Amino acid sequence: MFVLYQSVIFALAKFIIMIKITLPDGSVKEFAKGTTPMDVAKSISEGLARNVISAAFNGTTVETETQLTTDGSLILYTWNDKEGKKAFWHSTSHVMAQVLEEQFPGIKLTLGPAIDNGFYYDVDFGDKKITDADFKAIEDRVLEVSREKHEFKMRPVSKAEALEIYKNNEYKTELISNLEDGTITFCDHANFFDLCRGGHIPNTGIIKAMKIMSVAGAYWRGDEKNKQLTRVYGISFPKQKDLTEYLELLEEAKRRDHRKLGKELDLFAFSQKVGQGLPLWLPKGAALRDRLEQFLKKAQKKAGYEQVVTPHIGQKELYVTSGHYAKYGADSFQPIHTPAEGEEFLLKPMNCPHHCEIYNNKPWSYKDLPKRYAEFGTVYRYEQSGELHGLTRVRGFTQDDAHIFCTPDQLDKEFKNVIDLVLYVFGSLGFENFTAQVSLRDKENRDKYIGSDENWEKAEQAIINAASDKGLNYVIEYGEAAFYGPKLDFMVKDALGRQWQLGTIQVDYNLPERFELTYKGADDKLHRPVMIHRAPFGSMERFIAILLEHTAGNFPLWLMPEQAIILSLSEKYENYAKKVLELLENHEIRALIDNRNETIGKKIREAEVQKIPFMLIVGEEEAKNGTISVRRQGQEGKGNISVTIEEFAAIVNEEIGKTLKTFEV
Amino acid sequence: MFVLYQSVIFALAKFIIMIKITLPDGSVKEFAKGTTPMDVAKSISEGLARNVISAAFNGTTVETETQLTTDGSLILYTWNDKEGKKAFWHSTSHVMAQVLEEQFPGIKLTLGPAIDNGFYYDVDFGDKKITDADFKAIEDRVLEVSREKHEFKMRPVSKAEALEIYKNNEYKTELISNLEDGTITFCDHANFFDLCRGGHIPNTGIIKAMKIMSVAGAYWRGDEKNKQLTRVYGISFPKQKDLTEYLELLEEAKRRDHRKLGKELDLFAFSQKVGQGLPLWLPKGAALRDRLEQFLKKAQKKAGYEQVVTPHIGQKELYVTSGHYAKYGADSFQPIHTPAEGEEFLLKPMNCPHHCEIYNNKPWSYKDLPKRYAEFGTVYRYEQSGELHGLTRVRGFTQDDAHIFCTPDQLDKEFKNVIDLVLYVFGSLGFENFTAQVSLRDKENRDKYIGSDENWEKAEQAIINAASDKGLNYVIEYGEAAFYGPKLDFMVKDALGRQWQLGTIQVDYNLPERFELTYKGADDKLHRPVMIHRAPFGSMERFIAILLEHTAGNFPLWLMPEQAIILSLSEKYENYAKKVLELLENHEIRALIDNRNETIGKKIREAEVQKIPFMLIVGEEEAKNGTISVRRQGQEGKGNISVTIEEFAAIVNEEIGKTLKTFEV
Repeated sequence: MFVLYQSVIFALAKFIIMIKITLPDGSVKEFAKGTTPMDVAKSISEGLARNVISAAFNGTTVETETQLTTDGSLILYTWNDKEGKKAFWHSTSHVMAQVLEEQFPGIKLTLGPAIDNGFYYDVDFGDKKITDADFKAIEDRVLEVSREKHEFKMRPVSKAEALEIYKNNEYKTELISNLEDGTITFCDHANFFDLCRGGHIPNTGIIKAMKIMSVAGAYWRGDEKNKQLTRVYGISFPKQKDLTEYLELLEEAKRRDHRKLGKELDLFAFSQKVGQGLPLWLPKGAALRDRLEQFLKKAQKKAGYEQVVTPHIGQKELYVTSGHYAKYGADSFQPIHTPAEGEEFLLKPMNCPHHCEIYNNKPWSYKDLPKRYAEFGTVYRYEQSGELHGLTRVRGFTQDDAHIFCTPDQLDKEFKNVIDLVLYVFGSLGFENFTAQVSLRDKENRDKYIGSDENWEKAEQAIINAASDKGLNYVIEYGEAAFYGPKLDFMVKDALGRQWQLGTIQVDYNLPERFELTYKGADDKLHRPVMIHRAPFGSMERFIAILLEHTAGNFPLWLMPEQAIILSLSEKYENYAKKVLELLENHEIRALIDNRNETIGKKIREAEVQKIPFMLIVGEEEAKNGTISVRRQGQEGKGNISVTIEEFAAIVNEEIGKTLKTFEV
Repeated sequence: MFVLYQSVIFALAKFIIMIKITLPDGSVKEFAKGTTPMDVAKSISEGLARNVISAAFNGTTVETETQLTTDGSLILYTWNDKEGKKAFWHSTSHVMAQVLEEQFPGIKLTLGPAIDNGFYYDVDFGDKKITDADFKAIEDRVLEVSREKHEFKMRPVSKAEALEIYKNNEYKTELISNLEDGTITFCDHANFFDLCRGGHIPNTGIIKAMKIMSVAGAYWRGDEKNKQLTRVYGISFPKQKDLTEYLELLEEAKRRDHRKLGKELDLFAFSQKVGQGLPLWLPKGAALRDRLEQFLKKAQKKAGYEQVVTPHIGQKELYVTSGHYAKYGADSFQPIHTPAEGEEFLLKPMNCPHHCEIYNNKPWSYKDLPKRYAEFGTVYRYEQSGELHGLTRVRGFTQDDAHIFCTPDQLDKEFKNVIDLVLYVFGSLGFENFTAQVSLRDKENRDKYIGSDENWEKAEQAIINAASDKGLNYVIEYGEAAFYGPKLDFMVKDALGRQWQLGTIQVDYNLPERFELTYKGADDKLHRPVMIHRAPFGSMERFIAILLEHTAGNFPLWLMPEQAIILSLSEKYENYAKKVLELLENHEIRALIDNRNETIGKKIREAEVQKIPFMLIVGEEEAKNGTISVRRQGQEGKGNISVTIEEFAAIVNEEIGKTLKTFEV
């Protein structure tokens, strides 16, 4: 069928003007000038045509019905693409705006873009007010309009005409004033129009579910000197089921919010006096951090890393040398001056310059390399207060940092070893679902990178080899490398299906140059080492936040601050409880005793909240038989099992062994 | 004899005017007006009189021949007192000045005080120059003059006369100009005089040994805008043997200088680019730090401390609340500004404000207390570059800090527990020789302290009880408490007999007040907790410096980064060496292998420099018998012993057990 269709096109091509369309797989097809993206989709398959909801031509968003008149590359998007969702949500925003105008006559519309999850519209409601009680009617009417299957049609409007139409809307007037005449378009659907650049779904009929999520205040153009508008947040889906799932996910994400869990589990806190974005780690949180650090330190020791300790400040000069000051200085915490002597220091935003100076402390031979300096280094980076969020966006955080200084020939092996370490970390912490991205140079534009062509080729090949050899599920992105070297990033999917970037491995030719690092080669001449930056966790703060949300606080057993709690049926079993504790300690099981004069029911409930994996109940019978009655956290209804300490230790070790493997080099 | 002498005094007292002299033991004796300190010494014993070299009357230095004319308290000093040495060295400085004037006519003398070790004289040599070659002649002549037993005599001189005498010496003129007429005195000995406030030994005859240590440049009055003078450093002793010992000690101190050992053992480094006073801990040094930290953490865990982690900066507001900003702000690293939002942060100079905020994170009941928050917290304090010295004076250091928040009733027990911990630390690290100082309020001046009288009494009694109970060798110093609470300091003597202050325990009523800390008492009302600050090591940097100089790098075996090194007689014993390493690891002995193709002699020499305690030599015979040939570091000449791994492990564990005890709570 496709072949037939194509041959008809070729036959007609003699009579009409043809254009060449390049598709993402690299294939090039000819179509009649004026063909639309939807026509192209149909030419590929009816199924695709049914699902296409948006398109981009030569990198610019177009309508599915836009007529293509030149050669170019076309991407067709479905709901499964980020761009597809964006068109879907932006289109719903039009429908919602239409409904808002109907239900609140006289309001002034401003801007209504799609966002990561849904869309919003900023509205000047004048003397009117929208409340939660209005949501239902709006949602119902949006779906009613949608069911009418209105198409979105773009039309050009002259600047003068546009200004005239919006003469009573100072917001649109401001937007139009900044546009060039000839570039202004409106989008029509039903009896509604809006100033719009385009990027819509074919028609409203595919919007099957819609919900207004919230309303909030927002200044016009984000400037607090301007008037405050009302931002109406909404989301929509092609199936009712998708909305239900989304709302469930939101509820689950709220339950798992690391800020909430952090408080419940007594892990960390913030203090207004200390300053926002500067977490205080409470005893349990500090113990958790320490356990993670010890876990990684142990593996790193096996892998030949050496721990170092460096200060949290450095002279401004250090960052002038590294180039960071020129690039980030103005947007960072400002320099620290001294009372005398006119010195200037900076809070360190990264550890690499310090590690370069450690490397530079003495001369090296190629036989000494690689040197692998590791440090749990706390760094400080200024973030605007509005950007701060729990532990995921902070102003001070501890990187599980390391820098490997090696010869170009060692890069291959070092890279593989780092991947092994990263995979060991992910595996031990229950992140089973991840992909990798290899970021290489822009092939067309090699001038903008530092380092020799030969070394780049070596490094890029080393990364690709390593990623393949280690069986990673990876994609290659050209042009995504930093100017100083190629890199490999890991994207991890958490239990809620959200993507997080965790674990970066980065090759660097720049700092060795700037810090004039050298080693003596076999040829007795001085050479530049290559540097690898890597951090499997990324930062302790962000990692713990993600781990909290991924596990809902039920960390892998090996990581649990307390693996078991001994609950005595009454205070008279205190001695037996203590004996059990001692035996558990001999088995290196971390436990504590709850010997308070409380009911066993209350003790269990509290242990459940604290998410302690095993509750070990001890009473008359257990003391007599030398056993414990074991209850698993979160498994209400399941009966307790009665075992000896040795049997319990075997259960614990078996479970630990499922996640925590021994790291082999 | 003494009784007889005293009764004669009493008999004469009827005819002459008597004064009452209070001695340091609190006894009060009557003497005729005009009595000299030397007379008092003679009245006590001939032996004392022979040894007295200086005195203080009512807190002011006097000559041993000064006539006492009022009641007052008198202290007599011998060479064994700091003040005695001061008089001895200051007196020698006069003699040296005399000799310098003889040998370099026309020079201008300025100031010549005693210092901690000896004395100096700052001299304007004009167009003359003193060099090492001149030292011997000066020393010889100083001793020649000394043997003439000249007495030091003070005489008052009017300001006008003094100015006339020194009219050609602009330095003395400046000094005299700042003095009040009627207070100016000169000191005469032999044919030499000098502007001088007094405080000399009876006569030059007791100066038996003298050495010029060095010459250096020094600006007049320490101000670099002034003329540069030549500072001549000297030292003197009452016995030739003392000088010999002192010079040997200096040599040994040079050998043990932590800056030298730190380099030799690859422990730490400094970088000009990172900044002075900011140590970079190299892998071996970082491992040493970590081992010390783990050692203390383990004991602290047993003692009920909880680790926390806090940021290295805090809002200025935090230090305004704590009072530190008002007190130290101007002399500290200056505030860190942010690019927007006008926030101000400070590098934290101490951890207590952060720990107060952790305490304040939730409400506490008296049942929850004590809370003991511990942190190896890195703090930053600005020191002028001239004050910096290796690891003992730095700009960034890590305190082994902890803050105990308790009820006033718990203070007694908490204080004892902290002493136990401090003693455990000293014992495990080989500091056997120490004293303690209890610093209490000034009894006469109780207004200047914060906190209730009742709480102070409780706290002071708690410290004294604890010090007595724990059998400390302590002195009580009234008026030495901080305004916010009493304290206990430990003074440790190192292997070279030098005193170091290590380990402070400090009670604080101030910060709980300023941070409004509370707990709910048994009476259901809110109360203020008491805070204890404590740091057994003080700082990791300073402690490691002292430990390096105390042990000359031969750390206690348990602390050694590497406890043994396996030296193979040739590369073919590599497999056996690896097997030995594995067996040692099973015994938790830290070892490494030197399997290089080098002679055994070279391998031993290098292991000696690295101060690795045990060298385990393996060759044909050892591999055959499953033994190792053990050589102890630093015991050249003693033969090796041949033992099995088990036997060796027993030797190691026995030696470890000699210093590292188990910490019992």
